[in-house]
Amino acid sequence: MKRLNWGLIGGGRGSQIGSVHRIGAQADGNFALVAGALDHRPDEGRSYAIELGVDEERAYGTWQEMLGGERNRADRVDLVTVATPNSTHFEITKAFLEAGFHVLCEKPMTMTVEEGEEVVRVAERCGRTCAVNYCYSAYPMVREMRAMVRRGDLGAIRLVVANFSHGHHADGGDVGNPRVRWRYDPALAGASGQMADCGIHALHLANFVTDDDVETLSADFASCIPSRELEDEAMVCYRTAGGVVGRLWTSSVAVGRQHGLDIQVFGEGGGFRWASEQPNQVMWTPLGGRTQIMEKGEAGLSGEVVGLSRVAIAHPEGFPLAVANIYMDLAATIRGDTREALPTAVDGLRSMAAVHATVASAKMHGTWMDARPPMFR
Amino acid sequence: MKRLNWGLIGGGRGSQIGSVHRIGAQADGNFALVAGALDHRPDEGRSYAIELGVDEERAYGTWQEMLGGERNRADRVDLVTVATPNSTHFEITKAFLEAGFHVLCEKPMTMTVEEGEEVVRVAERCGRTCAVNYCYSAYPMVREMRAMVRRGDLGAIRLVVANFSHGHHADGGDVGNPRVRWRYDPALAGASGQMADCGIHALHLANFVTDDDVETLSADFASCIPSRELEDEAMVCYRTAGGVVGRLWTSSVAVGRQHGLDIQVFGEGGGFRWASEQPNQVMWTPLGGRTQIMEKGEAGLSGEVVGLSRVAIAHPEGFPLAVANIYMDLAATIRGDTREALPTAVDGLRSMAAVHATVASAKMHGTWMDARPPMFR
Amino acid sequence: MKRLNWGLIGGGRGSQIGSVHRIGAQADGNFALVAGALDHRPDEGRSYAIELGVDEERAYGTWQEMLGGERNRADRVDLVTVATPNSTHFEITKAFLEAGFHVLCEKPMTMTVEEGEEVVRVAERCGRTCAVNYCYSAYPMVREMRAMVRRGDLGAIRLVVANFSHGHHADGGDVGNPRVRWRYDPALAGASGQMADCGIHALHLANFVTDDDVETLSADFASCIPSRELEDEAMVCYRTAGGVVGRLWTSSVAVGRQHGLDIQVFGEGGGFRWASEQPNQVMWTPLGGRTQIMEKGEAGLSGEVVGLSRVAIAHPEGFPLAVANIYMDLAATIRGDTREALPTAVDGLRSMAAVHATVASAKMHGTWMDARPPMFR
Amino acid sequence: MKRLNWGLIGGGRGSQIGSVHRIGAQADGNFALVAGALDHRPDEGRSYAIELGVDEERAYGTWQEMLGGERNRADRVDLVTVATPNSTHFEITKAFLEAGFHVLCEKPMTMTVEEGEEVVRVAERCGRTCAVNYCYSAYPMVREMRAMVRRGDLGAIRLVVANFSHGHHADGGDVGNPRVRWRYDPALAGASGQMADCGIHALHLANFVTDDDVETLSADFASCIPSRELEDEAMVCYRTAGGVVGRLWTSSVAVGRQHGLDIQVFGEGGGFRWASEQPNQVMWTPLGGRTQIMEKGEAGLSGEVVGLSRVAIAHPEGFPLAVANIYMDLAATIRGDTREALPTAVDGLRSMAAVHATVASAKMHGTWMDARPPMFR
Repeated sequence: MKRLNWGLIGGGRGSQIGSVHRIGAQADGNFALVAGALDHRPDEGRSYAIELGVDEERAYGTWQEMLGGERNRADRVDLVTVATPNSTHFEITKAFLEAGFHVLCEKPMTMTVEEGEEVVRVAERCGRTCAVNYCYSAYPMVREMRAMVRRGDLGAIRLVVANFSHGHHADGGDVGNPRVRWRYDPALAGASGQMADCGIHALHLANFVTDDDVETLSADFASCIPSRELEDEAMVCYRTAGGVVGRLWTSSVAVGRQHGLDIQVFGEGGGFRWASEQPNQVMWTPLGGRTQIMEKGEAGLSGEVVGLSRVAIAHPEGFPLAVANIYMDLAATIRGDTREALPTAVDGLRSMAAVHATVASAKMHGTWMDARPPMFR
Repeated sequence: MKRLNWGLIGGGRGSQIGSVHRIGAQADGNFALVAGALDHRPDEGRSYAIELGVDEERAYGTWQEMLGGERNRADRVDLVTVATPNSTHFEITKAFLEAGFHVLCEKPMTMTVEEGEEVVRVAERCGRTCAVNYCYSAYPMVREMRAMVRRGDLGAIRLVVANFSHGHHADGGDVGNPRVRWRYDPALAGASGQMADCGIHALHLANFVTDDDVETLSADFASCIPSRELEDEAMVCYRTAGGVVGRLWTSSVAVGRQHGLDIQVFGEGGGFRWASEQPNQVMWTPLGGRTQIMEKGEAGLSGEVVGLSRVAIAHPEGFPLAVANIYMDLAATIRGDTREALPTAVDGLRSMAAVHATVASAKMHGTWMDARPPMFR
Repeated sequence: MKRLNWGLIGGGRGSQIGSVHRIGAQADGNFALVAGALDHRPDEGRSYAIELGVDEERAYGTWQEMLGGERNRADRVDLVTVATPNSTHFEITKAFLEAGFHVLCEKPMTMTVEEGEEVVRVAERCGRTCAVNYCYSAYPMVREMRAMVRRGDLGAIRLVVANFSHGHHADGGDVGNPRVRWRYDPALAGASGQMADCGIHALHLANFVTDDDVETLSADFASCIPSRELEDEAMVCYRTAGGVVGRLWTSSVAVGRQHGLDIQVFGEGGGFRWASEQPNQVMWTPLGGRTQIMEKGEAGLSGEVVGLSRVAIAHPEGFPLAVANIYMDLAATIRGDTREALPTAVDGLRSMAAVHATVASAKMHGTWMDARPPMFR
Repeated sequence: MKRLNWGLIGGGRGSQIGSVHRIGAQADGNFALVAGALDHRPDEGRSYAIELGVDEERAYGTWQEMLGGERNRADRVDLVTVATPNSTHFEITKAFLEAGFHVLCEKPMTMTVEEGEEVVRVAERCGRTCAVNYCYSAYPMVREMRAMVRRGDLGAIRLVVANFSHGHHADGGDVGNPRVRWRYDPALAGASGQMADCGIHALHLANFVTDDDVETLSADFASCIPSRELEDEAMVCYRTAGGVVGRLWTSSVAVGRQHGLDIQVFGEGGGFRWASEQPNQVMWTPLGGRTQIMEKGEAGLSGEVVGLSRVAIAHPEGFPLAVANIYMDLAATIRGDTREALPTAVDGLRSMAAVHATVASAKMHGTWMDARPPMFR
């Protein structure tokens, strides 16, 4: 099968996100990097792209140049990845969709719910795929959990508990550190700090695994480091469209928690749990039975996850290859074999709307709020 | 040192709680069982007491007989343990306190806040110790955590997360099981189900470790098994008197969680976590440093916990010997060396008041409530 | 059922082993401490016994006095526990057996194979039970493992791997510490250091769980701290009577390993593993299936282990209550309901013979040796 | 920096090893796949190479064609990876080295010690790098362990315990499975089964981490599935050139162990352990201190490992990116910045010589043998 043409915006030299996208896109030979606007400094971006094997004429200085250069080429890129600062996602994503490109956008897809609805509409109108990089949902064992829920192994779901709590912003003396500070500054981060940065991942993960959507919620926010204007700690209670009880805890001051994303789902027929720090296992307990350790690559997993692992059972695979699974789904989708597990603009919108609802609820002392985007109410 | 005289009410043949109290009271040679009213069936209780070595004349048929028989003896019992059904705790505890006995009462100390305040007043007036068996707080490593908080190892505490969630009442087909059903029936369990049964332990544990008290709270309850009138699932957000943010999750439908009691505390200077299923370790992470595994019995623990362990480092000690530590504290207190770590009627009252506040909050959609007993407001 | 009379030799004030035996013997109300010779200092031993509730006339100054005092009493002790220094076990045990007492001897039962054979013969001749405190074999989940092997869950056993390796004697600067030094001094410890101290437990455990006996072996010893005359590190390869392959590693310089006793057994139909630091779980993997976490107290365990646990599933029980299970077996056996899982003089002899075989093999560069005591060849 | 030209031999469509090498070589943009002889079926190999972006003229049918085609090109490949069946490694590796190419050879580098010595001599004579894919040694935390040993954190090393034991060949009914059977057939696997397949990795890892070499050894082999001519179970005791005591266990019938590679190292000043199933952590215990959890990506790791990780602390990285680290070292070495941590032909030879010594020792009932290749004695 011919490799697809891929373009990258952002992700310049030394950036972790750029490295992860390049590993992910190229891991399975589905995409070849043929165009890029990799840096906000045009010359630096161009020279780095050339170093990575991009032809000189497709090593662009800005995303606008790239849009102009690619839109009329016969061999134009099949997919554009947007890995720029958060506040620029909306504009770039929208522009490329409207020009007929498929887009993979980093999270958060947009800063506001209105922008999110706009992206959903544009993608639909243009008939292009707009994916959002909720990559935790692409770990094979996360996909397997969803398959188990759908197959009914847990029976009716009663309860989901998702956490994304770490301790990497717990140093009160570190307030001047720009890599930390912007996240709690409304001018740069928007309406929410920790919820928008991390809680949103837990929220998407919970929706994804339970194949359900948060509908109403109540939130309690705190700024454990008082100089922070936005929350660094949040607890959310919610109910889904399907009537499931949800609890979601996110924190950045939980010293000793490292990555800190995990999920537990409990149903009538059993429960399971998964943690991102050991992504290759799921602990599954059928009602009345023993806890079993499920392993990535074991015999008998559902068909849809088999291709998502590249090495045999018990050989660990990590975060960059979860991103590779997003690209695998994208390649299949672009080639016409749509993958419904791929997180799209609708997911980006729903999770952003829920984050905004937590902000509103927290301001009103935990009053329960509708968490759905207006267009889906 | 002479052994103290001990009497037990409840805890008859085959009861787990009776076995645990007998192991706990006698483990260190501090107490000798000399009196008992062990069963609601007088003959059965008397014969079992005699089998356990109690003299015939002190093998009582009822707690009232025991109260009458012991109150005027020169060698009367130094301590009475109340291990009867929950609804009888108040009456028995109050009667023995008023007759001048020290009492160890099983949790919950009372069914209502009013009764709890009454027990606090009676104990104070009579100058007797009324302890409550919040035995998780007596594990050596739990005591060590509190010592660390008090010593300032964590700096100012910011956040505490306590869970007591298990899956042993998750079987929807099990609604007729009397060992399960009464817990969710307001006629037998009172105002609360899972919060009063398990959440209350997590609440006491959090207060104990952080040396602080819950002040206000907001709760979300659910009956995941809909036929239950009382909650089997609850999430509580709270603030302490000291301004700490608290989150407390309790559930009995979390299939796959076994014991399910754990706590995490995060401060300016570090964080730690402990779980009752591995009670001999604490995971401690100083800010900016690595997570360290602290072991029961390791060199350098604070003096107050050294005597609470009976076997060398890495030889596990479990639940019954945590109860033995409650008795060790009681023996010392009765002999005049008061142990302030011993949970008393004030703790029994405070935790019961907080449970009642969660019930009220949950009924009002999570409205924040004062969690303190009226006498401490 | 009437309590049995129990006498203790050794285990004086402040000794851990004494505390553990007293908790163990009295935990289930089977034994009452009525006689004791608790200390090599007669007065100290007598006064401590009285403090523990022993009548003055049965608070003896020496084991010889106790033997003389008890042998002709109508209410003489039903069981004597020998918890004195290793080199005295043989003499005391033999004397009490010959006087018609049941004995529980601490390990090692004797210092030589010849003495071990003598104890076996004496116990048989006198028709008394001589138990040896291989208490790890009395954890409920260890008993369950043996039940699984016997029931055929693992099919024919192929391989057993047992380790007892810790790091508590790893400090080279600590050579003068008398609590450590004697273990590596042949004048005090006998022919072997770490094998006789710890390896012997792993050896018994492996034999117990697989219901088989080591038959031939090859050993490699090292003194990682060179000033030690006896080994602090040993690896043993062996074969059992049943043809099973064995590997046994024991070390006292393995810094970071805490208790360090664990076992893995692999058969045609599956494998399991257990570690003393988490004694309430077994990890069991049927061939071709997932690893399952078995829990002490779960439904469906074999009948013989049900009584060995005193608290519900997931409430941890530790080392002292494993010793209590030895006493529970002893009480049943003395009352006429013989418990074949109880470790006896034959086990004490077999394990001592195997230790001596490792010493001989290690001296001859790993030459394979017969590990059986002469009387069982 | 310009990308290097890379050629791959073997690793055709559907092969796991091919996928891993392609991910590894391209992950960091150091190598571009420009030539390949990917399959023993020439047409299939050519078409797959073209699909992966190789120019038609460099999509070769055989490795001999590739050697002929590349040797005289100005833009010839900078590195050839040999990922063919084991018995062909020697011939291909030697041929490419002699033609002046750098080579990365899959393990085992050769089938015999003599061939291994020949490769070492050829590589030296030709001045080319011959690397061997002992990729476990390229995990960042494994590199960090070696850095700690070299820096003296553990003081003089006393003891190393390495295991590579899994249960994936434990099914006695599976003897006809060709993916399993060849490993235990001397006609296909050579002199050793499990030692050559897995034990050799543990052996290299132990040598690598301790920066030392096995010198003498004693081995015990077993065929737990009796129809196997070669061993499926082995225990090796050894001593290193530096006087360290070694124990190495490898098995393929250990049901329930998944990947099963782990290592523990103990020195005068502390000990650590690492397991391939959780490759991002090291458990480190300084003598007299607490066990600490070291994390990939934490602050303060030694400089040489910083570049070996692509995502932030606690984002897991797995097996394919350990292989990528081998390629990163190769790229640096080829560009003139020699990386001494890269496993080379000398490592391939030493480990093969030790495997052959275990075979000889096991045949002679564990007689101690010289484990060094003749050229290094």
